[in-house]
Amino acid sequence: MIRIILSGAHGRMGKVIADMVANNPTYEIVAGIDRKKGPLAPFPVYGSLSEVKEEADVVIDFSYFETVPTLLKDTQKKALPIVIATTGLPAATLNQMKKIAETIPVFFSANMSLGINVLIQALQQITPNLESDFDIEMIEKHHNQKKDAPSGTALLLADSINEVCQTKKEYLFGRQGNHNENLRSQMGIHAVRGGTIPGEHTVLFAGQDELIELKHTALSRDIFANGALKAASFLVTQAPGFYSMKELLSN
Amino acid sequence: MIRIILSGAHGRMGKVIADMVANNPTYEIVAGIDRKKGPLAPFPVYGSLSEVKEEADVVIDFSYFETVPTLLKDTQKKALPIVIATTGLPAATLNQMKKIAETIPVFFSANMSLGINVLIQALQQITPNLESDFDIEMIEKHHNQKKDAPSGTALLLADSINEVCQTKKEYLFGRQGNHNENLRSQMGIHAVRGGTIPGEHTVLFAGQDELIELKHTALSRDIFANGALKAASFLVTQAPGFYSMKELLSN
Amino acid sequence: MIRIILSGAHGRMGKVIADMVANNPTYEIVAGIDRKKGPLAPFPVYGSLSEVKEEADVVIDFSYFETVPTLLKDTQKKALPIVIATTGLPAATLNQMKKIAETIPVFFSANMSLGINVLIQALQQITPNLESDFDIEMIEKHHNQKKDAPSGTALLLADSINEVCQTKKEYLFGRQGNHNENLRSQMGIHAVRGGTIPGEHTVLFAGQDELIELKHTALSRDIFANGALKAASFLVTQAPGFYSMKELLSN
Amino acid sequence: MIRIILSGAHGRMGKVIADMVANNPTYEIVAGIDRKKGPLAPFPVYGSLSEVKEEADVVIDFSYFETVPTLLKDTQKKALPIVIATTGLPAATLNQMKKIAETIPVFFSANMSLGINVLIQALQQITPNLESDFDIEMIEKHHNQKKDAPSGTALLLADSINEVCQTKKEYLFGRQGNHNENLRSQMGIHAVRGGTIPGEHTVLFAGQDELIELKHTALSRDIFANGALKAASFLVTQAPGFYSMKELLSN
Repeated sequence: MIRIILSGAHGRMGKVIADMVANNPTYEIVAGIDRKKGPLAPFPVYGSLSEVKEEADVVIDFSYFETVPTLLKDTQKKALPIVIATTGLPAATLNQMKKIAETIPVFFSANMSLGINVLIQALQQITPNLESDFDIEMIEKHHNQKKDAPSGTALLLADSINEVCQTKKEYLFGRQGNHNENLRSQMGIHAVRGGTIPGEHTVLFAGQDELIELKHTALSRDIFANGALKAASFLVTQAPGFYSMKELLSN
Repeated sequence: MIRIILSGAHGRMGKVIADMVANNPTYEIVAGIDRKKGPLAPFPVYGSLSEVKEEADVVIDFSYFETVPTLLKDTQKKALPIVIATTGLPAATLNQMKKIAETIPVFFSANMSLGINVLIQALQQITPNLESDFDIEMIEKHHNQKKDAPSGTALLLADSINEVCQTKKEYLFGRQGNHNENLRSQMGIHAVRGGTIPGEHTVLFAGQDELIELKHTALSRDIFANGALKAASFLVTQAPGFYSMKELLSN
Repeated sequence: MIRIILSGAHGRMGKVIADMVANNPTYEIVAGIDRKKGPLAPFPVYGSLSEVKEEADVVIDFSYFETVPTLLKDTQKKALPIVIATTGLPAATLNQMKKIAETIPVFFSANMSLGINVLIQALQQITPNLESDFDIEMIEKHHNQKKDAPSGTALLLADSINEVCQTKKEYLFGRQGNHNENLRSQMGIHAVRGGTIPGEHTVLFAGQDELIELKHTALSRDIFANGALKAASFLVTQAPGFYSMKELLSN
Repeated sequence: MIRIILSGAHGRMGKVIADMVANNPTYEIVAGIDRKKGPLAPFPVYGSLSEVKEEADVVIDFSYFETVPTLLKDTQKKALPIVIATTGLPAATLNQMKKIAETIPVFFSANMSLGINVLIQALQQITPNLESDFDIEMIEKHHNQKKDAPSGTALLLADSINEVCQTKKEYLFGRQGNHNENLRSQMGIHAVRGGTIPGEHTVLFAGQDELIELKHTALSRDIFANGALKAASFLVTQAPGFYSMKELLSN
């Protein structure tokens, strides 16, 4: 049994993770943290980690970027491992994380889903073998309420590919007109929007009479909660250090 | 047996149609027409239709837009049915076709493939039932040597949808940034390019928890030759008039 | 505002429809019917339609096959239109429905989703134009808890295709071995199962260098509730008679 | 410039490779080998390797399983590297290859396409991270003249997955009926056949609200010729030994 302190307990992802753990004997949420009040939870919720009295094995954080710096300091004082699943963190907070990781185990990933990280792993493995003979394009699909295009995950995937490419790709967010040249140096990223389409990302490698496609579909937010729980299970057995999905997957 | 005079006999599509008919007892090419010289064909090739001496049932034209006006006049003199499969015709030639169709059967389609026309038929049937509840997007894929984006076929499909929509869609050729709103009045058309991808067009209807996709894949130019032969078979039994794939399909 | 009596109010689909209507000013549930007790609803729930005192415009039924015969008789007495969305009805009940439809408007569909019915409509339109040149195959995907294969919807789609085929197809539920012949007279129906895959049905028409695919994805049960509400809106303006999605769609 | 002796010069793949090399300054075919007579080639064709007088850097073999044992011995005498792309080899010939590889560089792959081997590499990397949480299914599509089902490549991919699975999967070639249980221990392999569909293989990992798909499409036989040429380029710089696509890709 892994005892969890859940930061961001009253947020959308906090509720998802609490629901998921409710039916899972492997995990128990012993306390929550949230600055805002929320509906009665089956565990006590405090305003900050320093107030938490319960014994725990790990902190999971799905809160807000402004909350993270204090949370990290409080976690260090308690000498607990921490999984940071909050997004939109500034560079300063990323640096703070790495500094604090010298004394406690810290886990961070720009995308908490197992599948997206497995996809990144596969993309970084195959791209060097395909780069010189294949064009690379991306199609991502999301619901019609999504305001940003392309998605953060699309850019994360594109950057992961570029990281291992000898010739860096310029991103292109659509094509129109009569002079579409120099493709090998470009990566088209196409953002499809409509209805309640679940998040879908496809990377297409197109060569001479041969196509390879890698596609990920996210059917709900449960996958981020699931990834955070996997990260927590992994982290409680680790020495102090800075960990990401890369280390979890290679295990 | 249908006896064909093939206009544009030395062009790319002329060769495709000649190869296809070579193994097909239903059709025979009795003469070719081409302004340019070409390799020896298993049928005589003349510089214009007026020179052709062979008896025939129908003319199939895969030539060049400048050749069509004279060909139409010559066909009218011979009182033969004619299938025009040449693309890029100016409005004046389209008008000439309709005028001449008062005296001979004339068949014309902006896209000669059976499948694309079946797709248009299906799109025009289902769009009115979906328009008020579903967003519409299109993804088209082609090889990396294609210069224009989106493809002419993509625009043909989009226009076919718009024709039956009460609220006309504005076309959008990519998305980038943070203000992607007013989707129901837009249709995203995404042009993917890479390697030797065969021509692929997908129309996506995305509603509340429900998606419908219609997709066409063209694996070679044979499909245009095949469509022209089907049109010829259809046309030889028709009275004078202007025909398109719509009439062929409803038979 | 359409006033609804909801039969099967405490069942799974009853709850879905009640949730959906809660935020929709076009519809109001004035009473529920259920033989079983359930949690407190925002409308009175009775044991049978004969006990309902509220004025209403239409009955929507998502109950159990045994409940339908009595419900139909009670609806006839009240001279209300009725939408039957209950599945698994025996032939006798279907006959009873058609008989009662002489005096009241009755709506019935084997699948209540708008999208599946639009797909059937498109399949029945295009199949006659493709039948002689294209092979037809189906792939359906569902979650790993689904016990039956292929899905009822897959068979509904296959039967709809066969209905308009001159040469009837024999269904084939997989291929193995070295003698896979006589394809044109067969339709392979492939049942993929895994994880929490949402219901997906793809019909593939494969011809000479040309493919056409029609695909439907159902992301939740909301689509059946949505279809029932659309049917109710349609039915309240109709004369007595037996109606299906075919009539709704052609409007 | 790599000088090639092409075994199986008059066969289908021999012609493909000769056509491909004709426009490529990196490679030159200096001689062909074939037991059968064929049309005049732009290089001399001999009955066996022992008769070839031309100087060469490597042998590429796309012949027939019965030809390979003698060819291997002759190649060893000439101390040339050899790429074996012939399929359907018995175990004895595979053993002979490995024995001879002690003195010359020998390259062999059950599938010569770069893409299929890249796909295998990716599958073997990601499967261990997904095995415990995801079901695995495969869909392969081919033209309607293919007699065997599933394809040899589908079985190659399935075996590659099983090789790295802790719990071995039983293969299932279709589903029908009402008792589809025990999925995690099974892998459905679905063979779709129709028209002129190009070879397509999709592996689907389906988990809790998350799907990952890896797909390969082979648009022509050129990809096998292309893979053989890549293997030849790789092999001419290697020491004696037995090599496969695995070694080529890890470079």
